Amino acid sequence: MANEWATFGADLHLELRGPRLRAGLMDALREAVRSGRLEAGTRLPSSRSLAADLGMARNTVADAYAELVAEGWLTARQGSGTRVARRTEPRRAEPRRAEPRRAEPRRPEPRPGARPAAAPPARALPRPSAPAHNLKAGTPDLASFPRAEWLKAYRRALTAAPNEAFGYGDPRGRIELRTVLAEYLARARGVYARPERIVVCAGFVHGLMLIGQVLRSRGVRDVAIESYGLGLHAGLLTGAGLGTPVLPFDERGTRVEESGPLGSAGAVLMTAAHQFPLGGALPPDRRAEVVDWARASGGFVLEDDYDGEFRYDRQPVGALQGLDPERVVYLGTASKSLAPGLRLAWMVLPESLVGEVVAAKGVVDWVSSAPDQLAFAEFLGSGAYDRHVRAMRLRYRRRRDQLVAAVAAHSPETRVSGIAAGLHAVLALPPGTEQDVLRAAAWNGLAVQGVDQFRRPGVPATLDGLVVGYATPPDSAWQSALRTLCRVLPQAPGGG
Amino acid sequence: MANEWATFGADLHLELRGPRLRAGLMDALREAVRSGRLEAGTRLPSSRSLAADLGMARNTVADAYAELVAEGWLTARQGSGTRVARRTEPRRAEPRRAEPRRAEPRRPEPRPGARPAAAPPARALPRPSAPAHNLKAGTPDLASFPRAEWLKAYRRALTAAPNEAFGYGDPRGRIELRTVLAEYLARARGVYARPERIVVCAGFVHGLMLIGQVLRSRGVRDVAIESYGLGLHAGLLTGAGLGTPVLPFDERGTRVEESGPLGSAGAVLMTAAHQFPLGGALPPDRRAEVVDWARASGGFVLEDDYDGEFRYDRQPVGALQGLDPERVVYLGTASKSLAPGLRLAWMVLPESLVGEVVAAKGVVDWVSSAPDQLAFAEFLGSGAYDRHVRAMRLRYRRRRDQLVAAVAAHSPETRVSGIAAGLHAVLALPPGTEQDVLRAAAWNGLAVQGVDQFRRPGVPATLDGLVVGYATPPDSAWQSALRTLCRVLPQAPGGG
Repeated sequence: MANEWATFGADLHLELRGPRLRAGLMDALREAVRSGRLEAGTRLPSSRSLAADLGMARNTVADAYAELVAEGWLTARQGSGTRVARRTEPRRAEPRRAEPRRAEPRRPEPRPGARPAAAPPARALPRPSAPAHNLKAGTPDLASFPRAEWLKAYRRALTAAPNEAFGYGDPRGRIELRTVLAEYLARARGVYARPERIVVCAGFVHGLMLIGQVLRSRGVRDVAIESYGLGLHAGLLTGAGLGTPVLPFDERGTRVEESGPLGSAGAVLMTAAHQFPLGGALPPDRRAEVVDWARASGGFVLEDDYDGEFRYDRQPVGALQGLDPERVVYLGTASKSLAPGLRLAWMVLPESLVGEVVAAKGVVDWVSSAPDQLAFAEFLGSGAYDRHVRAMRLRYRRRRDQLVAAVAAHSPETRVSGIAAGLHAVLALPPGTEQDVLRAAAWNGLAVQGVDQFRRPGVPATLDGLVVGYATPPDSAWQSALRTLCRVLPQAPGGG
Repeated sequence: MANEWATFGADLHLELRGPRLRAGLMDALREAVRSGRLEAGTRLPSSRSLAADLGMARNTVADAYAELVAEGWLTARQGSGTRVARRTEPRRAEPRRAEPRRAEPRRPEPRPGARPAAAPPARALPRPSAPAHNLKAGTPDLASFPRAEWLKAYRRALTAAPNEAFGYGDPRGRIELRTVLAEYLARARGVYARPERIVVCAGFVHGLMLIGQVLRSRGVRDVAIESYGLGLHAGLLTGAGLGTPVLPFDERGTRVEESGPLGSAGAVLMTAAHQFPLGGALPPDRRAEVVDWARASGGFVLEDDYDGEFRYDRQPVGALQGLDPERVVYLGTASKSLAPGLRLAWMVLPESLVGEVVAAKGVVDWVSSAPDQLAFAEFLGSGAYDRHVRAMRLRYRRRRDQLVAAVAAHSPETRVSGIAAGLHAVLALPPGTEQDVLRAAAWNGLAVQGVDQFRRPGVPATLDGLVVGYATPPDSAWQSALRTLCRVLPQAPGGG
């Protein structure tokens, strides 16, 4: 099927296919290795240079490389760059199989002393082409999408829609949706929201891109970001021509003193309710401090409230936006609470930004599908959204409890943090072991990410840990994923 | 409700509200005049300068000015700029009402000798705040949206969707949709389409923006455009950093000889099947010529096939893309054939562009809602789309015939052109009368546009005419809209 070829280096072609760019690049690289087009030992271009060749964000390529290193297809050594893993070099253990399949990569070498319980065998064995278990963070349990309830809302909305709803829409989004969103956000997240300040967008990144454009055209040069986060978001700001100075962090979370990088920034992007991926909530004094900074400097706080609905042990932390609606841009999404596939998100804007954001959005004039917006309005207004969030909160909380219990039983020295809220937790690992655990996970068919993957360039690598998205697998796959996770964690002395 | 204020000039504020930017700006200007904040005779800022203040495209402001001039709120005189129409100056006819309502603008002065049949009365009378009749081109009959059939397709699609459909999607769009689109486009439009060359996007402008970005990053400097077209499209290219040299046209349509502006362009944007708004199809020799240019120069033809499904008297003209799929980017949309509110469009790309376009789209990673894409796939695959297009083709053809007959009866000297296809026709007017007819139309509560509004800057104003979107009104409003149109057209000597 796929036959798109992108030039790679001098004359090597990579087949890029979906579903996601990084996944596509990884598949293409695996295929090139598997087929022998990329020979063992070949040095790959730098992530920067390959990214430029492919027109991708550098982080996408770097992430793909990191995962393929973790999966054993590639190796990365200081001073030697990223290379295709050698598959014929003898390893120290005796061969168990006389003829390892040529098309499969060799497992990577585990570092002595850091060998996880379920370490790969000494010789290469065929690995499944796709991971059997998925604990990557960022996606809710898609199997729990409330199809029947959504369909009911869609039918009602489509039946009741005025004819003009099928025309070119208001770039702000349907008024019906903005009206119920205002009510919901005030009630559930403490957001000061009025329909005329709300702009519906097609995902958090769409909103961030629009805000970035507006800030840049206002003359803002830097938007400060947290020490850990998604490379995609930083890349989006960079792409809008903005610098992204990195805020330091300490054991209490992100530091927001004005003497730091905030001093020169025009805005700051924060996951205040639930830091992604580390998991903490910004302490109240720092919430006040960052809003004070915005007031004093005329800057803006961009609040990425990606999973604010999910807090387990007490009331959700209200949105920062409530502290000062004129200085905080609130960005929310249905991607975690409902499904990313709907492409529904929203911004609540300071009055002073509404006109510019709407103008920026209106130039391209694309809005989410009007029937979808109306269906979501119906879904929210009928209480179906609240019911769904409540049900998912119970389910995710149960999984979180099972995760905490299982880790305590199998790997008592592993500390689980960031568990008060959200859809993921961080498992702190002994210093220097993150890559080994990731390799063991890949070997065991478990897709999971390390905190290092979210570290901003220049931030010291002081943390080792796994980011475990416990919401990701469907119920049917959750227990086996959890068992596999426990197998690859550092074992208690004498345990296992 | 609305309380967004944009600074206007020194200290005047304009209230901007939906549903569309231009409409919002027009409302705000009307309100400012009505309330007296903008006094009669006040000179408005240039469209360029107001556009910069508001962060809008200049064409949006220029169009709003033009329509308000046509509606009589503003005046535009050579050398005197755009001003608020004077409301107290005595006109030549006797007053019929002693006290014209202060809050309403005066009607504009009709030029002597060009007075349409249904000219405004000599003194200002209250006008309806929204036009009663709408014959603006660009929107299909929204009342004919096939709600029941669409809902059926949506239900089937949502029920059958795999769980992963609710996750983050492939930036190219769902494979189910791309597969049926490939089949449909090959069958209905003669497009050489394979699923892996198709990228689903959220409207034509979204696709054009992506292509513009990719071309610009390839080093293309100019994308040639036609003499008449939408300012939005040109503005989008300009916004991507591209120049937009204008191709000349003659009585056979757009001229595409290499010695013209094409010579230095890296691509050309064309409405080859049905020029918008003038209505002709590009003659076969010029189709071949522009593709030959693309082959010889390595350039691309961007084919805007916005209403290719609608051709009335013979087989549709096949897409230009079939001539050379490696040099023509095909852009299609459901906005005219089904409804703009769905935000569904598609590109069929040369193999060499797929990777870059997908990468550009993937950076922001927003795609149309997956359930919508699956519903559209079901709608296409089940034959419901073909049935809908056939039904609408009959309906629109009947309206076209009624338009032609009515114009022939009421204004026999008005030539109707561009009627072989599409959802609009052009009514040629006597030289110098377009603005008068538009004023009469506005006065009679008829929203309709003149060809001059679509003329690119620098193109000589050699045509006077109305662009009549006969698909726009619902059936219930069509006859009265047509009657109103006939009233404002130039009358036959002694006729009327």
